[in-house]
Amino acid sequence: MSFEKKSMDELQRLSAEEFQQAEKFPIVLILDNFRSALNVGSLFRSADAFRIEAIYCCGITPLPPHREILKTALGSTESVNWKHFNTTLEGIQEIEQTHEVWALEQTHNSVPLHTFKTPKALALVLGNEVNGVDEEVLKLVTGSLEIEQHGTKHSLNVAVSGGVALFHLTQPNIHSV
Amino acid sequence: MSFEKKSMDELQRLSAEEFQQAEKFPIVLILDNFRSALNVGSLFRSADAFRIEAIYCCGITPLPPHREILKTALGSTESVNWKHFNTTLEGIQEIEQTHEVWALEQTHNSVPLHTFKTPKALALVLGNEVNGVDEEVLKLVTGSLEIEQHGTKHSLNVAVSGGVALFHLTQPNIHSV
Repeated sequence: MSFEKKSMDELQRLSAEEFQQAEKFPIVLILDNFRSALNVGSLFRSADAFRIEAIYCCGITPLPPHREILKTALGSTESVNWKHFNTTLEGIQEIEQTHEVWALEQTHNSVPLHTFKTPKALALVLGNEVNGVDEEVLKLVTGSLEIEQHGTKHSLNVAVSGGVALFHLTQPNIHSV
Repeated sequence: MSFEKKSMDELQRLSAEEFQQAEKFPIVLILDNFRSALNVGSLFRSADAFRIEAIYCCGITPLPPHREILKTALGSTESVNWKHFNTTLEGIQEIEQTHEVWALEQTHNSVPLHTFKTPKALALVLGNEVNGVDEEVLKLVTGSLEIEQHGTKHSLNVAVSGGVALFHLTQPNIHSV
């Protein structure tokens, strides 16, 4: 069997203009005071790949255009919609009327990600690299999702866990839309 | 409902010694000539979180100890088993008697990751950041897995796609062991 790599044409990717027009998975990522521009850029790249609605960059989260974001976003800041909010609270207030707000965080009542069925529209808060999702933000969410982990370390890198979450949440058999 | 964050105790993580003794998911990652030490470190961190058998660092792939690997591995090079091989071919030869070898690559006959049921023991080849999995390596694999993508860019970051793959492949309802 041939495992020849698909060409860019064969992958049938969209142009940035087509992406703007295309229907999106009704998912918004809310970045809660990220420290690392490399992580922001990587999440832009994943947000492009899974064609979600938008990224909300909140608080001190680095914003495009930014040299370090470019390194990992590889141009996806041109396709993915994004907004800046001074606080994560403001980002949540903007979206909570239309999207169910969850956090990706290991809490006392978190739901294992792999058992979670995506609601009609979802806003997912990802937390700061050191502190995770802010305690005040956790008071505002419908629930928290946890990626079950079996090793020695506290958590995955947040760009990896965000990518894992988008993969799971956009599966056709899991999404309720 | 309380979404108080779990403490490190409550997360019940293993010590490095307990990790060594613990049963692993029978999965080995084979890194085919990686360029970025940051990606290597991030995959060590994910390999720790999903408690897999080993990472094979092949060809020019940066090796621990390495300053840039440390930045993203955060100590997981102390828990995860790894080996170096001069070529990816040698890494595959070491493992192919006991593990089914697949590539994570977008090819003409790739299987969507979300439909794939993990074999009893799996070696997964991840490719170089620019060139993907080498054509010669693709001639040696049982098959290739593809993370379906719907955006404008060619692919996900390889540390993200590796993390996504490990998440899916270690799900209890998906793993055949």
